[in-house]
Amino acid sequence: MSSAAISFCRQHNVRFLDELKNFLRIPSISTLPEHAADCRKAADFIATELRRIGMENVRLIETTGHPLVYADWLHATGKHTALIYGHYDVQPTDPIDEWISPPFEPTERNGNIYARGAVDDKGQVWAQIKSLEALFATGGGLPVNVRCIFEGEEEVGGEGIADYVASKPPELKADFALVSDTELFAPNLPTLCVGLRGMIYTELEVRGAKTDLHSGVYGGAAPNPFFSLAQILAKLKDENGHILIPGFYDGIIPPSPEELKAWASLPFDEEQYRLHEVGSTQLVGEAGYSVLERTWARPTLDVHGMPGGFIGAGAKTVIPAKAMAKVSMRLVPGMTPQKTYELYANYVRKIAPAGVEVETRLIHQGDACLVTVNNPYIQAATHALFEVWGKETVFIRSGGSIPIVGDFDKHLGLPSVMMGFGLPDDNIHAPNEKFHLKNFQLGIESLVRFFEEVANIK
Amino acid sequence: MSSAAISFCRQHNVRFLDELKNFLRIPSISTLPEHAADCRKAADFIATELRRIGMENVRLIETTGHPLVYADWLHATGKHTALIYGHYDVQPTDPIDEWISPPFEPTERNGNIYARGAVDDKGQVWAQIKSLEALFATGGGLPVNVRCIFEGEEEVGGEGIADYVASKPPELKADFALVSDTELFAPNLPTLCVGLRGMIYTELEVRGAKTDLHSGVYGGAAPNPFFSLAQILAKLKDENGHILIPGFYDGIIPPSPEELKAWASLPFDEEQYRLHEVGSTQLVGEAGYSVLERTWARPTLDVHGMPGGFIGAGAKTVIPAKAMAKVSMRLVPGMTPQKTYELYANYVRKIAPAGVEVETRLIHQGDACLVTVNNPYIQAATHALFEVWGKETVFIRSGGSIPIVGDFDKHLGLPSVMMGFGLPDDNIHAPNEKFHLKNFQLGIESLVRFFEEVANIK
Repeated sequence: MSSAAISFCRQHNVRFLDELKNFLRIPSISTLPEHAADCRKAADFIATELRRIGMENVRLIETTGHPLVYADWLHATGKHTALIYGHYDVQPTDPIDEWISPPFEPTERNGNIYARGAVDDKGQVWAQIKSLEALFATGGGLPVNVRCIFEGEEEVGGEGIADYVASKPPELKADFALVSDTELFAPNLPTLCVGLRGMIYTELEVRGAKTDLHSGVYGGAAPNPFFSLAQILAKLKDENGHILIPGFYDGIIPPSPEELKAWASLPFDEEQYRLHEVGSTQLVGEAGYSVLERTWARPTLDVHGMPGGFIGAGAKTVIPAKAMAKVSMRLVPGMTPQKTYELYANYVRKIAPAGVEVETRLIHQGDACLVTVNNPYIQAATHALFEVWGKETVFIRSGGSIPIVGDFDKHLGLPSVMMGFGLPDDNIHAPNEKFHLKNFQLGIESLVRFFEEVANIK
Repeated sequence: MSSAAISFCRQHNVRFLDELKNFLRIPSISTLPEHAADCRKAADFIATELRRIGMENVRLIETTGHPLVYADWLHATGKHTALIYGHYDVQPTDPIDEWISPPFEPTERNGNIYARGAVDDKGQVWAQIKSLEALFATGGGLPVNVRCIFEGEEEVGGEGIADYVASKPPELKADFALVSDTELFAPNLPTLCVGLRGMIYTELEVRGAKTDLHSGVYGGAAPNPFFSLAQILAKLKDENGHILIPGFYDGIIPPSPEELKAWASLPFDEEQYRLHEVGSTQLVGEAGYSVLERTWARPTLDVHGMPGGFIGAGAKTVIPAKAMAKVSMRLVPGMTPQKTYELYANYVRKIAPAGVEVETRLIHQGDACLVTVNNPYIQAATHALFEVWGKETVFIRSGGSIPIVGDFDKHLGLPSVMMGFGLPDDNIHAPNEKFHLKNFQLGIESLVRFFEEVANIK
């Protein structure tokens, strides 16, 4: 592995990191309306850099939410065309007081860069852009045709890009997509993700009295929406993690015996995982399935927060008029968001306790997806990863959802190469999110070699 | 009824209301640390007025929280001594966007004054003080001996005054207490409250993973604290409102047949109550008990809020490391806060789901209490109320808790006269709290007559 582009990456790694820090300082939290201007600033930041390194037709594409960033370079005659995808938006930072260094002041510690978005996904987007810069700077152009599409709503469901992709615009004509928003299965173990869970994210609202009431005066007569929510939630999943919504599991396509065998040989220690990644007294979930099956190939149901009522310090003796639960479900192949939502909504209506009205709302959805491993882009990726990391690639799934991968398939017919460089303990969506600096560096080099390998595909 | 003091009240009613508005403009929310200075301001406001009208030894008494306000006038030789109690602190204002006029901009509408604290309890404290002013202004002194003790922590458990009362200070030596923090059973129906429920207010915290986790990556393996809370809460009370904590109901003293008979003859229409006070599709609670029994003489369990996780707009796919439920129970005679809390805490520990740790905390407590109706102060009150309202007094209980009433009894041996002038639809602890202006006026007159009646007690 002696390409000039790889040497360029190593010479400029300090600058690359400094630039990433500037990118990370922009608090582009897509779900909070007060950060809308920051999201646009992050989009502009990428667009400016894409122009500087040599990409063409760079522009922001407006959506109903935060803008997309488009760029292309299409002068590699006869070569395949990659559609590079990543997202510049980040998760909120709460609980803010658990961050060791402030989320938008990128800080190096222990060989990592800590910041909100460090690995999800700004660091990986920056690795993609820097791989292109290295190829431009040392090759006078790119070895393959490249289109870039970066979005700013991945953390809130990606409605803007979903609409754009569904419109099948000529700007997205390509042979495959490169998606860098995933992680290595273990440190130093090159990994490609070939399966994702889908999801539905819902709000479940329960309304009782017409106004907040005093719990002394009305306790014993007025319905309590939080208590009703607790009753409903407790009927959605039993104590063994089995989801009780009738029909929920119907039609699920299980992993193949070969895939299950490969998973069983992965370096995974359940006790280490419990202790160091989760940190709970024990793991939970459906009996009869391994942790990897439960998190990659089985549907789940989680509660993310329960807004309403009194949440301040101290005591307020209120029976709130309404309460809400934010409930999401992860879906696996064979399930669809719409059908799952309907089963859920019907069941919730059916089990609603007396005295309250319930309303469900579907806020976001995404299909589950699987990628075949024997396509030439996956093969090119495994070659590139072997050169950079010195090991054979493992194929895994992710329990998370990247709805865009399903959209690229459904609307554009593009297979996705999900090549990402996070680590399992990177604290994505949590305080102290980080990106391992070695992975940032080798990630850039892996992407450089990947594009060089794609140039060899006939 | 032709006392000079009554005439004085009628001449000065506009000024009395203007003064109350100034009192209501002070946002003395005791539970929010950022309003500590406002609480002190409210205490100073009262102290200044007490001095102005002629009370003596007026001073603030420091506590571990917000200060008490003390005053006395003890020159009615041979007469009984009243201990006047009220509180100057108020509840928080959330949900703020449901207020028609801002909570700290007192506004007159439809014969009411709307503001946080209008009736609970600033308006009633002001009625007490104005009754004393009228007696001072027209009698050259008071017809009875009076001590005043006003607190600023009633809405957060009243720890400061509880400690002070428990210390049996000479300043609180009296023959009875007058507590004005209750309401009429119905408009124009003079009412004395002779029973209160006690309470315990707890926090139930559930901890799962060591940090917030991504629900895609970890969903199916990591415990979800909100879901665990839902499971626990659903096991605390069944669908018929029966509380499932073992031993919870043991030792309860039911109301006498006479008391139940009197309640049955009160003007109470359950359907009107459901429609106009609660506004839910139906009422809830224990089968086999009337609404008045359920809210006055049966214990209850309510959830006030569930802090933790993500409560913003939109979607955040987090499995929170911890979640909390604010859970309170109302107690009736025969139950004690300490025993009830122990039963609850033990049961919660026992039913805690696998994978999570639970912790319960007792934040506030108060004893239930009953007052005998055949004491001379209650008799004096019924005489006064008959003169002002033209009707016989009804004796009711309140489902709410006024822990100080139990403390006055336990530590000082004082019976309490709970004479208050709120109305059932005054929205206490809720948006659009109000005080009916007629009740403010007749409340002052009732208190004037009450003190005049007490002067006749041998």
